[in-house]
Amino acid sequence: MNNPRVEELLEFLRFPSVSAQSGHAGDMKECADWLVAKLQRSGLEARAVSTGGHPAVIGATPRDPSKRTVLIYGHYDVQPAEPFELWTTPPFEPQIRDGRIWGRGSTDNKGQIFAHITGVAEALQEGPLPVNVIFLIEGEEEVGSTHLAGFLKSHHDELACDVIAISDTGMAADGYPTLSYALRGVAAMEVTVTGPSHDLHSGVYGGAVANPATAAARLIASLHDADGRVLIDGFYDKVRGLAAWEREAAAAAPVKDSDIAEQAGVDELFGEPGFTAIERIGARPTAEVNGIGGGYQGEGSKTVLPASAFFKLTFRLVPDQSPDAILDLAEAHFRKHCPPGVKITIERGHGGEAYFLDPNSPDGIAARAALESVFGKKPALLREGGSIPILTSLREILGRDSLLVALASPDCRAHSPDENFPLENFLAGIRLNKELLARLAHAN
Amino acid sequence: MNNPRVEELLEFLRFPSVSAQSGHAGDMKECADWLVAKLQRSGLEARAVSTGGHPAVIGATPRDPSKRTVLIYGHYDVQPAEPFELWTTPPFEPQIRDGRIWGRGSTDNKGQIFAHITGVAEALQEGPLPVNVIFLIEGEEEVGSTHLAGFLKSHHDELACDVIAISDTGMAADGYPTLSYALRGVAAMEVTVTGPSHDLHSGVYGGAVANPATAAARLIASLHDADGRVLIDGFYDKVRGLAAWEREAAAAAPVKDSDIAEQAGVDELFGEPGFTAIERIGARPTAEVNGIGGGYQGEGSKTVLPASAFFKLTFRLVPDQSPDAILDLAEAHFRKHCPPGVKITIERGHGGEAYFLDPNSPDGIAARAALESVFGKKPALLREGGSIPILTSLREILGRDSLLVALASPDCRAHSPDENFPLENFLAGIRLNKELLARLAHAN
Repeated sequence: MNNPRVEELLEFLRFPSVSAQSGHAGDMKECADWLVAKLQRSGLEARAVSTGGHPAVIGATPRDPSKRTVLIYGHYDVQPAEPFELWTTPPFEPQIRDGRIWGRGSTDNKGQIFAHITGVAEALQEGPLPVNVIFLIEGEEEVGSTHLAGFLKSHHDELACDVIAISDTGMAADGYPTLSYALRGVAAMEVTVTGPSHDLHSGVYGGAVANPATAAARLIASLHDADGRVLIDGFYDKVRGLAAWEREAAAAAPVKDSDIAEQAGVDELFGEPGFTAIERIGARPTAEVNGIGGGYQGEGSKTVLPASAFFKLTFRLVPDQSPDAILDLAEAHFRKHCPPGVKITIERGHGGEAYFLDPNSPDGIAARAALESVFGKKPALLREGGSIPILTSLREILGRDSLLVALASPDCRAHSPDENFPLENFLAGIRLNKELLARLAHAN
Repeated sequence: MNNPRVEELLEFLRFPSVSAQSGHAGDMKECADWLVAKLQRSGLEARAVSTGGHPAVIGATPRDPSKRTVLIYGHYDVQPAEPFELWTTPPFEPQIRDGRIWGRGSTDNKGQIFAHITGVAEALQEGPLPVNVIFLIEGEEEVGSTHLAGFLKSHHDELACDVIAISDTGMAADGYPTLSYALRGVAAMEVTVTGPSHDLHSGVYGGAVANPATAAARLIASLHDADGRVLIDGFYDKVRGLAAWEREAAAAAPVKDSDIAEQAGVDELFGEPGFTAIERIGARPTAEVNGIGGGYQGEGSKTVLPASAFFKLTFRLVPDQSPDAILDLAEAHFRKHCPPGVKITIERGHGGEAYFLDPNSPDGIAARAALESVFGKKPALLREGGSIPILTSLREILGRDSLLVALASPDCRAHSPDENFPLENFLAGIRLNKELLARLAHAN
């Protein structure tokens, strides 16, 4: 592989820029500085800006007031790579095999944002761009973009734009052009269940005191009915229904429920009755346990009655659910269902609202045309199950909508071991950047 | 302290006879040899016998066929002393302060078995004993008595006896005479719930596939009703009820439910209705989660839908539940309640039956009379919640019951730093040995 575009991306991927783990704070800073240098080399004015958390990177072409301005958002932080032992090759030593780049962040989001950076860098070598471009590349997307809203407010004028472009979503099928017009919101919570003051001998005390691991399990079990419908009072009250054209678009998309099952590696799908799996992922809210722990987890058995247990969960939200309101309902639910003999403490995590952009708006139509021109077919219109909470901040603070033009392959394993990014998508992303900027120049 | 009885016990305690740690194999052997010499000095025929693991020590008076034979069981191995830094004085440099001997093994079990040895040694100075005595002092009690059953079989004739006496249980209250007449059995199981082939992004797939952590929680929640009664079909079918005298004995015992709550560090107790906590611990079976794990357990949040989750549980059993039968019922329960979209695998662990000795039998009455004579009050009759699996081996292989005459103080800190043994209990144990042998001589 002597392609310098790819070599540079591999360099980017080698930074273990894990925003969630405090031990990687130094790597985060080095990665941001590397990005700044790359943007400067490409002909943009760029700098790393402190946010109160991990720094954000801004890079911009000189602003020509006669042109529209496109803000391209991405993030250089990545998910934790644990469990390391499940990776075929080390997560931060990216490798190329089978036409793909393998490594943490290869798709989410380093590979995708780097396609846009490369597109702009190459276009600038040929002359001025048809639009003003601002890159905003943050370092806290995987931890809820804690400081981004404040940052957007304090840099409001510098980031003023007409439209926002983001590649941080998935293609409906491998190589299939996709415009995602909706994303779910998210709200995170951790519940800790405490009982005895110390781990007890389960023979000497078992039967006399409540078991926090059992209590945690009962709280989790109280979240759903047997069919997978969420049982929190009021959880579905604000949910906006699916329009007829949306159910048609979902049915027409190249991804089928059987594809979901295959990607997930399950024999059978499961979830709320009355909706296809595609619809459940895009348009229905969930309550999902992300982790649970308590007591003895080592080899063999240890006869303890644990002093505590915990679980982490995230709710995925749809329009018009509010993260705070859902966390309120969830907290009330857990307090109401807390079994006797234990105490619970609830810690609220990050939250973000669901997002919806009309794909029939002028910018939506421009994005669809750019996708069709690069990939040679009409793009699928998708609702995504994931969350990009910052879309709401971008809309509220900068007053602009975001075009979600997908470059992630369905089997990219984002957030999982063996995350990967097809080289083909990287190269298509570079072309897409050029097409998109050209069409957005005249979309209003 | 110039009491030679105590000096000898301190010598015994100085051996770091930690059976679990291979580095102490030499100390184990030296300790066994020291015991043999002590028994020989006392007038018994004694030797250390290899078992396949750490040696066992046998010491016996010449067998007079006209007398009954009492086997006194104990162990010279001790728990690891870690964490050393939590000991006030070093664990293997025993010291006397506040009327107690402080050191690893002071209660469990060196101090208790040495009271019996001293009792026999002193009685032998006055003439022949009223019974034949066999000491069986093993070196693997703290590591599951791995080789004991085989040893009992191969030395069946030499160990033939009428009744067994053991001081390895706890007094109901400090200085309170106590006969433990029942212990619970145990049966262990681990359940692994698997779903997707890899950890999934909980946004991208959440709502479409079953969550193994949620499924594991639902399986655990299916184990009990809201009051803590086990819901496994047939679980209580074989359970022997509490006789009226047992409920009276439990109510009369000096340990109260409030003591249990204080020891456990809980504000309120919890468990099967209709029984006191003391009764639940001693006489009711349980299904207790010892550990649970799945998904992301690190700092912050990670939005995964985990590929798997697991839980470890142990059932505590009472007469006449069989470990294998209970594991069969539990397995059927989990298979029946397994939620859609996931698979479960079940691994069975160790098991041991519950133990029960009628305290109104002639030997039980003899033990109670001996306890009353030494401590000056009627002994508490206790059912213990823990398990001593070797009791079942002793009964099955030697065909004899065990009298559990407690010498351990409730705050002896067995298995913990600052293990200690009241001098008073040691001296009472010496007297108890003499009283017990005298009464057992004519108990049939």
